[in-house]
Amino acid sequence: MTIELTEERKQQLRADYARGFVAYCGLSAMDISAGRLSARVDIDDRHRQQDGFIHAGVMATLADHTAGYAAFTMIPEGRRILTIEFKINFLRPAFGPALICRSRVLKPGRKVLICESEIFDQRADGDVLAAKAMATMASVHESELRADR
Amino acid sequence: MTIELTEERKQQLRADYARGFVAYCGLSAMDISAGRLSARVDIDDRHRQQDGFIHAGVMATLADHTAGYAAFTMIPEGRRILTIEFKINFLRPAFGPALICRSRVLKPGRKVLICESEIFDQRADGDVLAAKAMATMASVHESELRADR
Amino acid sequence: MTIELTEERKQQLRADYARGFVAYCGLSAMDISAGRLSARVDIDDRHRQQDGFIHAGVMATLADHTAGYAAFTMIPEGRRILTIEFKINFLRPAFGPALICRSRVLKPGRKVLICESEIFDQRADGDVLAAKAMATMASVHESELRADR
Amino acid sequence: MTIELTEERKQQLRADYARGFVAYCGLSAMDISAGRLSARVDIDDRHRQQDGFIHAGVMATLADHTAGYAAFTMIPEGRRILTIEFKINFLRPAFGPALICRSRVLKPGRKVLICESEIFDQRADGDVLAAKAMATMASVHESELRADR
Repeated sequence: MTIELTEERKQQLRADYARGFVAYCGLSAMDISAGRLSARVDIDDRHRQQDGFIHAGVMATLADHTAGYAAFTMIPEGRRILTIEFKINFLRPAFGPALICRSRVLKPGRKVLICESEIFDQRADGDVLAAKAMATMASVHESELRADR
Repeated sequence: MTIELTEERKQQLRADYARGFVAYCGLSAMDISAGRLSARVDIDDRHRQQDGFIHAGVMATLADHTAGYAAFTMIPEGRRILTIEFKINFLRPAFGPALICRSRVLKPGRKVLICESEIFDQRADGDVLAAKAMATMASVHESELRADR
Repeated sequence: MTIELTEERKQQLRADYARGFVAYCGLSAMDISAGRLSARVDIDDRHRQQDGFIHAGVMATLADHTAGYAAFTMIPEGRRILTIEFKINFLRPAFGPALICRSRVLKPGRKVLICESEIFDQRADGDVLAAKAMATMASVHESELRADR
Repeated sequence: MTIELTEERKQQLRADYARGFVAYCGLSAMDISAGRLSARVDIDDRHRQQDGFIHAGVMATLADHTAGYAAFTMIPEGRRILTIEFKINFLRPAFGPALICRSRVLKPGRKVLICESEIFDQRADGDVLAAKAMATMASVHESELRADR
């Protein structure tokens, strides 16, 4: 199964990345290639938790969504991606002015794709790995979106 | 290890729940008791993803944060909660006007607490379980918050 | 989607449960009903780890396999179950003379089923919850077993 | 925090790796260095599941145990490792004559260590990544082993 990732499709996916909740949270797509996507978010006070660190929910959203769009690069047009599950480990509290996420597809598949995401905290003294996630994505035909998986 | 959960502490935790990213996302705490917390979010367009469903990141944030504050009910004042990791399964796409989350501590501990969260999608025909999460939380003294775990 | 779980099918699944690695580890199925299965293992020295506790791998095998056969009760004959992923939290070190596992299907589906397993350590003073797992299972037609998912 | 990993300690950990359940399953340690461990298992019929593939429980045991001993390389003598939780994704059914596991510590810590494991299926046409796991390990002083975490 090889899906050609055209320049037009790349631009479409990159633009499509930042809608709804993801736009509201200020995330944006960066580099895109077959099975890979990077994204970023500039941090301000709305992203923090009760102790001033970046909220785990921001990192989870970034890890999940970027993995999902990495998966989009491996499926035909007309199909959509839904998250089946993900797991994320927080290695260190994050507090820098931006987060970078790098996601890749570990295993493509017609119906199920396995992805991983690494989130880096951009600190004054360099980027550090702040969280790592593994996600299982379902590829669903758009006509089945309301149906049971 | 039994921590008394006073009425004052309950009110403080309930108010403390909705700050920063969580306030920005519109989540709020509801019922609180020792080892248990429920919370809700009223859904509008900012919470949706590209196909109109509630974004997985909203559900992940709700599951993580509510589990974290359930954990807060089991630790002494002066200690703080940080998420070590969580895993969330999405059972059905969610699209109702509100989500309810019920979290509980499965296993308290001095340094590590294990919690679970269930998220219900409030649909016209009743609440349905939309997602379920398990989370591992660290209890850290506030003086160590910047230190390595 | 309702699959009738006949008495014959129950007996077949219960017998089928304990083969290969699972028989080698001494696990056996107990009660079975639609979407639910319990199983047990009597513990001896081969199940322990370096400090004398029951090995996490025994509990993981028990949680995964019992969830898988709970899933089998919800799918038509001719289809098979493969584990996509699972996550297990160990709440307490286990050391009793037997483990009991209770698994259930949280969400059935034609291609993907979400299950959970609870493992109880049978101690002298009663059963205690020792581990809890969530698992994502693929239902695959037996003709596709060698193919890519 | 830097722990010196002496040649003697390496040999001791490598020997200690294969005891109890792990010896019973035929796993053995291979290369060891600070924060890293590889291990292998030669597959025979006792390792298979109902369809002839290597059982998920074998891979989970290998992933968990190898991650745990990778963690052992980063902690002082007198402390022990217990698994808090792990999550494993199965990318492809495995059926080769041996499995290789490579584990590494993503984040050391005094009390909690985060590790990952990759399992390769040794097939006639080369090694393929069959499963990937993330694990959270507790470092506990041996005097506290029976106590609550």
